[in-house]
Parts: sequence; C-alpha cells; structure tokens
Amino acid sequence: MSVAVPRGYKVAGMFCGIKASKKLDLSLIVSETPAAAAGVYTQNLVCAAPVILDRQRTPSDQIRAVVINSGNANACTGERGAQDAARMAELAAQTCGARPEQVLVLSTGIIGEFLPMEKLAVGIPSVADKLATDEASLIAAAQGMLTTDTTHKLAARQIKLANTTIQLTGMAKGAAMIGPRMATMLAVIMTDAALTPADAQRLLATVVEDSFNCISVDGHMSTNDTVLLLANGAASARPLAGAELEQFGQALQEVATDLAKAIPIDGEGATHLITVDVEGCATREAARQIAKTVAESLLVKTAIAGADPNWGRIVSAAGYAGVPFRPQGVNLRVNGVQLYQAGQPTTFNRAAVSRSIRENRETAIELSFSEGTAKIRFWTTDLTAEYVRLNADYTT
Amino acid sequence: MSVAVPRGYKVAGMFCGIKASKKLDLSLIVSETPAAAAGVYTQNLVCAAPVILDRQRTPSDQIRAVVINSGNANACTGERGAQDAARMAELAAQTCGARPEQVLVLSTGIIGEFLPMEKLAVGIPSVADKLATDEASLIAAAQGMLTTDTTHKLAARQIKLANTTIQLTGMAKGAAMIGPRMATMLAVIMTDAALTPADAQRLLATVVEDSFNCISVDGHMSTNDTVLLLANGAASARPLAGAELEQFGQALQEVATDLAKAIPIDGEGATHLITVDVEGCATREAARQIAKTVAESLLVKTAIAGADPNWGRIVSAAGYAGVPFRPQGVNLRVNGVQLYQAGQPTTFNRAAVSRSIRENRETAIELSFSEGTAKIRFWTTDLTAEYVRLNADYTT
Repeated sequence: MSVAVPRGYKVAGMFCGIKASKKLDLSLIVSETPAAAAGVYTQNLVCAAPVILDRQRTPSDQIRAVVINSGNANACTGERGAQDAARMAELAAQTCGARPEQVLVLSTGIIGEFLPMEKLAVGIPSVADKLATDEASLIAAAQGMLTTDTTHKLAARQIKLANTTIQLTGMAKGAAMIGPRMATMLAVIMTDAALTPADAQRLLATVVEDSFNCISVDGHMSTNDTVLLLANGAASARPLAGAELEQFGQALQEVATDLAKAIPIDGEGATHLITVDVEGCATREAARQIAKTVAESLLVKTAIAGADPNWGRIVSAAGYAGVPFRPQGVNLRVNGVQLYQAGQPTTFNRAAVSRSIRENRETAIELSFSEGTAKIRFWTTDLTAEYVRLNADYTT
Repeated sequence: MSVAVPRGYKVAGMFCGIKASKKLDLSLIVSETPAAAAGVYTQNLVCAAPVILDRQRTPSDQIRAVVINSGNANACTGERGAQDAARMAELAAQTCGARPEQVLVLSTGIIGEFLPMEKLAVGIPSVADKLATDEASLIAAAQGMLTTDTTHKLAARQIKLANTTIQLTGMAKGAAMIGPRMATMLAVIMTDAALTPADAQRLLATVVEDSFNCISVDGHMSTNDTVLLLANGAASARPLAGAELEQFGQALQEVATDLAKAIPIDGEGATHLITVDVEGCATREAARQIAKTVAESLLVKTAIAGADPNWGRIVSAAGYAGVPFRPQGVNLRVNGVQLYQAGQPTTFNRAAVSRSIRENRETAIELSFSEGTAKIRFWTTDLTAEYVRLNADYTT
C-alpha cells in the first residue's frame, strides 16, 4: 500500500489561527482538472452549513477543490453560517481558477460559533501556496482536518488495470460524536481513476454502508458527517466500467474500511478496538441493529475497559435491540472463547479470557443467532474514565 | 406522606448469604389475604426466570406473597433457573400457608450464575420469621432488593375516601442498566385498597408509561425489570370504581413517579439528576423518542457532569432521534436560561449557566418544537468517570 497523492491532485495543510492549540486547522485539496465527485452526508436534521452546501453540489463532474477547516463546525449558525461556507468555497476557488460552485467545503469542531472569516480569508490563499504532491503535504492535509484525534488517518490502495495503475488515497478524521449513520467524521477519498458521477455516487453510498456506517464511538450522530469521493481521471481518461469498475469498487471498499476502523481505534480515551461480528440473522439490517446495540451499550463498553468477560451484558444488549430472535439459538464468543452456547452460559476460564482482553488492543465479540444467514461486522471502542474526562471538559 | 406498611401486609428483609458484601439480600412481602396483583415486565427477549414466572401469574386476584433476592439475577440460567425461581415461590408459600402459584418472585444482581438455593432454603423461612409492619422492617425490605444502589427507595401516598383512608407504599431498586422500557429496576407497590385485577393491570401499565418508562441511566434494558402492584382490600373490601378509582390512579402515578425519579437520582456515579422536558411534538411517542435520545447521549451526559452548557450536543442529539421536526422551530433552555431560540444560538452568560449547573444537584433541560402539543418529562443522570470505574470492575 503506497500512501501517495494520486495523479492530478495537490494537497496542503496548515495552521491558520482557528484552534487555540495552534494545531493544524486548515486543509486544501485541489484537482488540476474537474473531477467527478460524490458525497454521503449526516442524516441529522440539525446539519451544518457546509453539509447543506455540499449536498447541493454532489454528485458532480465539475469539482476542482475541497477546502476543510477544523476547530469550528459551522453548525447551528443559521444564515450567516451558510454565507460563511459559501465564502470559504469562493476563497478556495480564487486560488485555483475555479468557479465557487466547483468547490466543496468541510468543517468540524465546536458547534454554534461563527467561523473566524478574517483568519480564513488570509489562511486559504496561504494554504494554496503550500499545495504539493509529496507525502509530508498529504500528512499535513490529513492533520488539518483533525479535532480530538490523536493521530491523522490515511489509507490507500493501488489497482493495476490493463493500461494504467489507479491510486486511491483517503484521509479521515473522527474520535467522538461517532454513531452509525455517520458521525462527526469527515473523509475525503481521492482517486486518479475516471468515474461517471453516477458511478461515483453509487459506489460511495455502497461502501459507506459497510464502513463508516458500521462504526460507533458514542452513538452520537453529528451535524457535520461527510464522506467525499473525488475521481479526476488523471490515470485513465475513460470512465471505468465492467470488471475494472468492480475492481475499483473493491479497492474503494478497502480504503473506506481502513479509514472507518481508524476512527474507533483512535476513539477518545479508548483502550480497546472492539469488533462486533453478528451472524445468523434474518436480514442485514437486523444484524446491524443488534451489532449497533451491543456496540453502544455502556455496560458492554465499560466491561471491556475493565477486561471483564461479562457475557450477560452482551447477551442482554442483543435482547433489547428490537430484533426478534430465539434466545435458545444465541451463541457468543469473546476473543475466540465460547462464553454462551445455545442460550446457556458455558463453563470457561474467566481469568484467561480477562487476561486476553487486558493484554490485547483488539477485542473480538462474535454473536450468532439462528434466524437466517445475514451478517455484519461493526467496530466500536471501550468506554473509559478518560473519555468522560475529555468530554466533560471540551468547551469550558 | 406517611411511609407506612399498608394494612394487611407484613414485610421483612435480611442477609441470607448471597452477597459477598454481607448487605441485605432477601426480602419478603406477605399479604394476609389474597391480593389483586398486576405486573409490568422487561421487554428484553433475554429475560430472567422470575420474569417468566411472574408473567404467567399476573394479573391475578390470588397473590399472597412476593419474595425478592438481590445479588443474583437468575437470568440466562435456563431450565435450572426456572426450577430455582419456582422453588423460591414454594419456599415462600410454605411460610404463609399459601399455594406456590400465589407467590411472585423478583431477582436482581449478576446475570448467568445459578442461585445458591441452599442459602435461600434457610433464608426464606428465616426472613418470614421477621415479618412485621413497622417502619424498620419496611426499610429492611426495601434494602434487601438493592444492588449497587447507595440508598433504599420508598415512596407513599394516602388518599381519604368517604369511608376509609387508603395507603399506597412502594419500594424500588435500580442504579444502572437503566433504560427506558424498564431497566434493571424492580419495584413493588402495596396498597390496602381493593382493586379488580383488570383495573390493577390497566392502572399499573398506564402509570409505568409516565414513570419507569421515562427514566434512563445508561439505556441498557435489563433482563429482570419488574414493577408489581398488590392490592389486598384491607382498607376497602369493595373494589374501587368511578371517582375513587381515578383518585387512586393519581396517587399511584405519584408513588410510581417518586420511585422512578429516585433511580436516576441514585444513578451509579451520578452527580446530577437531569430532567428533560420536551414539548411541542406531534405525538407523545415523538416527544419520548427525542427526550430519550437526549437523555442517553453520552456527550450530553458528560457535558452536564462537566457543568458545560453545551447546547450543540443537546440540539444535535434531538436531531438524530429519528423524529422529523423543523430545525427553525427549536428552542432550548437549560436551568431556565434560553441558549437556543428559533433554531439559532442566543447570546447568554456561559459562566453563569455553568455555575448554575455546577452548584445544583438537578439540571433542567427544556426543549420545545413547533410540530404540535404533545410533551413528556424524562429523567436521567450525568455520566461521570465514577460510573465507568464502577462498571469496569463489577464482576472481576
């Protein structure tokens, strides 16, 4: 996996003065030529100004740039917020000779404060001056979108086609306010493949279902969640089709999954990445609902933080997911050890399972049912006192 | 409000050896004559043996006793658990000359371990020897049902009828695994009024909707939730009807609400009782769904723990509740201060609101919408590091 900027893009990140911490807070992605672009957005009724703007502009075959700020979500900011988002797009468009409507905008950070537009008016031309194609610039761009994340998140895949090699490179942010159906997470995936806008939108919507919609840190759906896909065709002028499109879709799924998993791995205060595998359900949505309910149970999450193989909390969370199942058909494994079989607790070495949870950064919860063949994989974090400390002190 | 044992009942509580802590773990309530009894139970598909048993036995006009143990939930214990619950009823029936099917059983505590029946075989006759009508015995009975609660929970009302005075006295337990649609909470409400079983069941189901189904500590619906109402007619032989029945229903609602609120007040690690008032919704269920989503948001709960008037978290939680509303019609007050009006943040004194949260044990969140006239009141707790510590260390 080569984490490189795909052909035809330039990227940059810098500190422009939004964050008190002086960490990077502004990123810019520019495509030399108009790119096909697709977006998937939060379903929160209270959504941020940049989400409203981007929704109107995707899918598209004309996108030239994405401008991203962190430290301020531009959410719950009304008409002035809408003007500020539009102004960010204008400022970015001026730096690359694009029309304002060829620019998408992403914001993340505190809700309900107005953007410091004077800083962005200076910052956006400055970050444009730094646009480049090297790895350091890519990392800076990925850093400029972070809030409480402890690390930047990049993922990439290459696929070899008959005449060319396609690069997919994505960046994401997110460490809390992460619930399924998107979260305070932002992601931008760039590719030098050519795609029709319709294919870009369809593929993105599909891969989000099995990646960003399968993660939860705290179940709180954000106002700003956005995943964008840009495809500028620098590596293949003709839009992908048939087997090549399918191969691309697979690589896109892998990049999206890598980025999605990176979010709970970096979950606020998290000490464990928990994978919840649910199988044997009547439908995929039933499996998702059970996995989500287990993943969001505070009692399950605190049990894993405490290295406690408390299967009762897991099984009882499944029981209130609102999905009918036969209790006698339930099986549960934690880190490969059967704790519950056919609706009954098993005899197991509690100390050994506890040790395996404590000594591993990842915990595997496998629940199976007897209602069908549908399954899903979901990722979440444990819940620690550190999460509470971080979130009790965020603005004050 | 006189917290007394209603006429015709005797109660007791003691330590019989289930809890390592040596705190009281066994309670018995006996009615001298057969009582009308109603029950409302967990909707968790994985429910405990005593819930299955009580469901079969209510509503009834023949109940003589309720036997309650804490320290062990008798949940996920299969056929042997069912036999143990039935045996508890038999043992209790023997102490008061009742038939086994005239006894209801409640259990709470750790899931998935078998009850220590040898201790209960000795304990149930012993606790029967302590049956009395004084306040100390009532408190002991209320203590015998506790788990991680820090205090027992009693509530009472008296109503004067033409010829008699009716007493309602309830006891409850619960401090975690508390979600709407019941929680790891148990409650028994005794009255010396006479009720038909049908009226008892109808009234109990109604009052639970506005009391125990309006509280959440952690949103985790338990396997054991049960609310029982016993009405033995010792104060009025003829079943209540008409205006008297209505007056009784009002008092029952007050007792149930007092008991329900006592649960989040005693929520594990909680430093604030949060009241979430939602009004202006199209339906009561829409209001409940919004209130529940706000009440269960980790980000809202940690914000209150940190005395942070973070209205963005509250408004965005409402936004993902799955209930349609006009964002421009949303208003929010916290502790009486308007933070958000007609979909826009207001200018308010952040330090003053923060201080009012910090210095008061109760926090009032009031959300209004513009979709209709339905409203609801919901109670929850804040989320502290202490909650996490308590729940990371529960079994191991």
